[in-house]
Amino acid sequence: MQFTAQDIAFILNGKVEGDPLIAVSQLAKIEEATPGSLTFLANPKYEQYLYTTNASIAIVNDSLELSGPVKATLIRVENAYSAFTVLLEKYNTYKLHKEGIEQPSFIHETAVLGENVYIGAFAYIGAGVKIGDNSKIYPHTYIGDNAGIGANTTLFANVKVYFDCVLGNNVTIHSGAVIGSDGFGFAPNADGTYTKIAQIGNVILEDDVEVGSNTTVDRATMGSTIIRKGAKLDNLIQIAHNVDIGSNTVIAAQTGISGSTKLAENVILGGQVGVVGHITIAKGTQVQAQSGISRTIKEENTKLAGSPAFAYSSNMRSNVVLQRLPELERRVIELEKIIAELRKAD
Amino acid sequence: MQFTAQDIAFILNGKVEGDPLIAVSQLAKIEEATPGSLTFLANPKYEQYLYTTNASIAIVNDSLELSGPVKATLIRVENAYSAFTVLLEKYNTYKLHKEGIEQPSFIHETAVLGENVYIGAFAYIGAGVKIGDNSKIYPHTYIGDNAGIGANTTLFANVKVYFDCVLGNNVTIHSGAVIGSDGFGFAPNADGTYTKIAQIGNVILEDDVEVGSNTTVDRATMGSTIIRKGAKLDNLIQIAHNVDIGSNTVIAAQTGISGSTKLAENVILGGQVGVVGHITIAKGTQVQAQSGISRTIKEENTKLAGSPAFAYSSNMRSNVVLQRLPELERRVIELEKIIAELRKAD
Amino acid sequence: MQFTAQDIAFILNGKVEGDPLIAVSQLAKIEEATPGSLTFLANPKYEQYLYTTNASIAIVNDSLELSGPVKATLIRVENAYSAFTVLLEKYNTYKLHKEGIEQPSFIHETAVLGENVYIGAFAYIGAGVKIGDNSKIYPHTYIGDNAGIGANTTLFANVKVYFDCVLGNNVTIHSGAVIGSDGFGFAPNADGTYTKIAQIGNVILEDDVEVGSNTTVDRATMGSTIIRKGAKLDNLIQIAHNVDIGSNTVIAAQTGISGSTKLAENVILGGQVGVVGHITIAKGTQVQAQSGISRTIKEENTKLAGSPAFAYSSNMRSNVVLQRLPELERRVIELEKIIAELRKAD
Repeated sequence: MQFTAQDIAFILNGKVEGDPLIAVSQLAKIEEATPGSLTFLANPKYEQYLYTTNASIAIVNDSLELSGPVKATLIRVENAYSAFTVLLEKYNTYKLHKEGIEQPSFIHETAVLGENVYIGAFAYIGAGVKIGDNSKIYPHTYIGDNAGIGANTTLFANVKVYFDCVLGNNVTIHSGAVIGSDGFGFAPNADGTYTKIAQIGNVILEDDVEVGSNTTVDRATMGSTIIRKGAKLDNLIQIAHNVDIGSNTVIAAQTGISGSTKLAENVILGGQVGVVGHITIAKGTQVQAQSGISRTIKEENTKLAGSPAFAYSSNMRSNVVLQRLPELERRVIELEKIIAELRKAD
Repeated sequence: MQFTAQDIAFILNGKVEGDPLIAVSQLAKIEEATPGSLTFLANPKYEQYLYTTNASIAIVNDSLELSGPVKATLIRVENAYSAFTVLLEKYNTYKLHKEGIEQPSFIHETAVLGENVYIGAFAYIGAGVKIGDNSKIYPHTYIGDNAGIGANTTLFANVKVYFDCVLGNNVTIHSGAVIGSDGFGFAPNADGTYTKIAQIGNVILEDDVEVGSNTTVDRATMGSTIIRKGAKLDNLIQIAHNVDIGSNTVIAAQTGISGSTKLAENVILGGQVGVVGHITIAKGTQVQAQSGISRTIKEENTKLAGSPAFAYSSNMRSNVVLQRLPELERRVIELEKIIAELRKAD
Repeated sequence: MQFTAQDIAFILNGKVEGDPLIAVSQLAKIEEATPGSLTFLANPKYEQYLYTTNASIAIVNDSLELSGPVKATLIRVENAYSAFTVLLEKYNTYKLHKEGIEQPSFIHETAVLGENVYIGAFAYIGAGVKIGDNSKIYPHTYIGDNAGIGANTTLFANVKVYFDCVLGNNVTIHSGAVIGSDGFGFAPNADGTYTKIAQIGNVILEDDVEVGSNTTVDRATMGSTIIRKGAKLDNLIQIAHNVDIGSNTVIAAQTGISGSTKLAENVILGGQVGVVGHITIAKGTQVQAQSGISRTIKEENTKLAGSPAFAYSSNMRSNVVLQRLPELERRVIELEKIIAELRKAD
């Protein structure tokens, strides 16, 4: 699908400088763009690339004063970055457009689908499932019995939602994520074996939650594991049973949260962080990648690092000294020798 | 599906106090219960909630003496916790009941299915596969050629079992787990490239093993990767080729075991632990979350922590001092200054 | 399928000692082999097993001088290890042979398949997809619109390739791996919420790349996330958006690479390593398991360990002292006391 410079200028309410009929079919970074692509220049730091880019069209700020000749056709707008974001969004909506019900798919006779829903081939929609308007269920996605899916929600290929789980509106889940598998609960017996504790709760994902690929969110033993409005989870994250993740909390890849822990809103966890079970983490806490949180954090907006984690700035200083720890030990040995001599001399 | 207080009292051999006809349709924690749900009180610590709970029915110990009025209908039994566990189990059996063969599914003509097996839509059962009685194969699950599945085994949606792998009885595997992918074996060549070493072994999961969602268990190079009877694996765990996991060993989420390592029985590994290859870990070893085990552990029932791991209690003490390491260094510098002065003075 | 000793000797150009008509149907390690299996002896360290093995056939070096009676039929070849590798490869090719198009599968009318392609049941091939000759697409695998798959490439059951991604020749991807899910990009708003940044790039996997089970490779924001020729990725690895992995780089399980980081060729990363975003790692860098790389590594062939990582050998020494850190602190306290006394005495 191709757009001309004048088409794009019309959408963005911009002015064309150059060939209004030149056409593009893709978006690209200014330093990597090839002919047929559209780019943008917002940060003056990259202005040099404007004079060498192979892009056919470049969106620039109205205020930009050129310091040399430019091959690309320019579209001048008030804010080039915002304008480009608008195009990105339109491009993405176009690329991700899907509609209708592909065959073969499995839709239980008791399932209720909203308007304008996409169901990919090999998708499985269980008994009593409800799916809201404009939601997209990609191929190989499984929705267990009595689960509820809101409106404008996208489940990419091969998402697994176990029975009874509830997803809100504008939720996005990437391939391979598992919502509602059993919590890891086993009672030890005297002979060393374990008896499974039935996990009869569910998982609730509120509106605007995004879950990355192959992330796992376990159902609660009883009650619900909850990911609250606007929280964003990256790939390969483990959320254990009865965890409660606050609104607008962001968690990077490969982090794990143990059972019954509660994160407040606007927490930021780096990648590969581990959090023990049955604690609470205050609003605005920020944790560096690979840290381990082993106790409740009560004070808001604390920055932590290390495993076990302590104050971020202290951790930085300790890490520096850690590198010269053998030398420090040698210096202590040296002091001990000197002192021994001094005492002998006394 | 609804049950009355007198139905439940009959099942549990208990006595009703209150309305015998009040009905419930779900189970809940005492502090979260809503009307229409059944709860229990076992731990005296939570007795306060009994007087405020919205549950319609509460199971309590026969010995409980009330200290105030209770809205809920009570069912008195000898042991409220055990009684509730019985109900949990019955509830779960009811929720997870599935039978018959859904369409479309792919069952190779040479596959042999036991009695009372559930095959979900889009399940794939390869050539020569055998599945025991009462096993459940959920939608999108793949069982490669000549794999064997025991009786009473449940593979939730989208489990992948590669060819030749063998699963015992009463095994439970959650969504997205992969059993039998290739071990990570490559021989380096002189030019920097690698040649793949064919991985022709298999994976054996013995009876009563549970595997969490998106966990991966690689097939052996030759012979078998083995998870022994009653071992429990959480989500997102990596088990490399030729690993041998002992009976009743429990491994928390995101832990990884490298190739050819052997864990004895009743080992407990926390989450995000790493274990190097070609070592053995003695019976009853317990390892704290985020630790790294880099050597064979010969002594049984050892507690370890840290990366690399050492004795748990020593590790705790070292972690405390680590936090004041910069201060310790300053104190050494101070000592060095004083000593230099003392020596000058001498 | 069975082969006799004389069949195998013919393939390997070897000499039979014993029963030329004895037949085998599998390969096994010398110490684990059962009747009906073939084994080999290359390392003299294992010669003892040759005299006790239950294997029906053993491949040995031509130069081997027996020191006792052997039950197994021998096949003498110039190099027993190489000969066995040839058989392994043939065995594997035989085991993994698949052809034809199983039903039901979904192949969009605009997709183009090469010669001799295998499409498993429930595979989904989107619009505009191209698949090269001799490639195998196992059941439940999803290939999004306009993705390209080279020749001789194998996607095992349940691989997910998002739209527009490009895979080369001789690529192998194991079950549950996700190629092309959205990069984790969100712009913070003043009210604490986040706005998603559309991820419109793709993923390119060059020739001879292998990707392990449940590994995730995110698509670029713009441009491409690239895994270059011959790189090998183990299971459960996270590759973020716009990462560039060099040729013949090897990454062990559960490691994560953050956005826009560039690894040069022949890098080796151990398991559970974390690498921050926007840095570069020089050719031949080797990083120990569980390390954290937080800065650009410019010098080639550096060995690193620790979190944050520093020189491998220094890290080893620091780790040793770390274990006696409480004792070191006590020694400093002792020195301070002595010094205080000495000064008083002065």
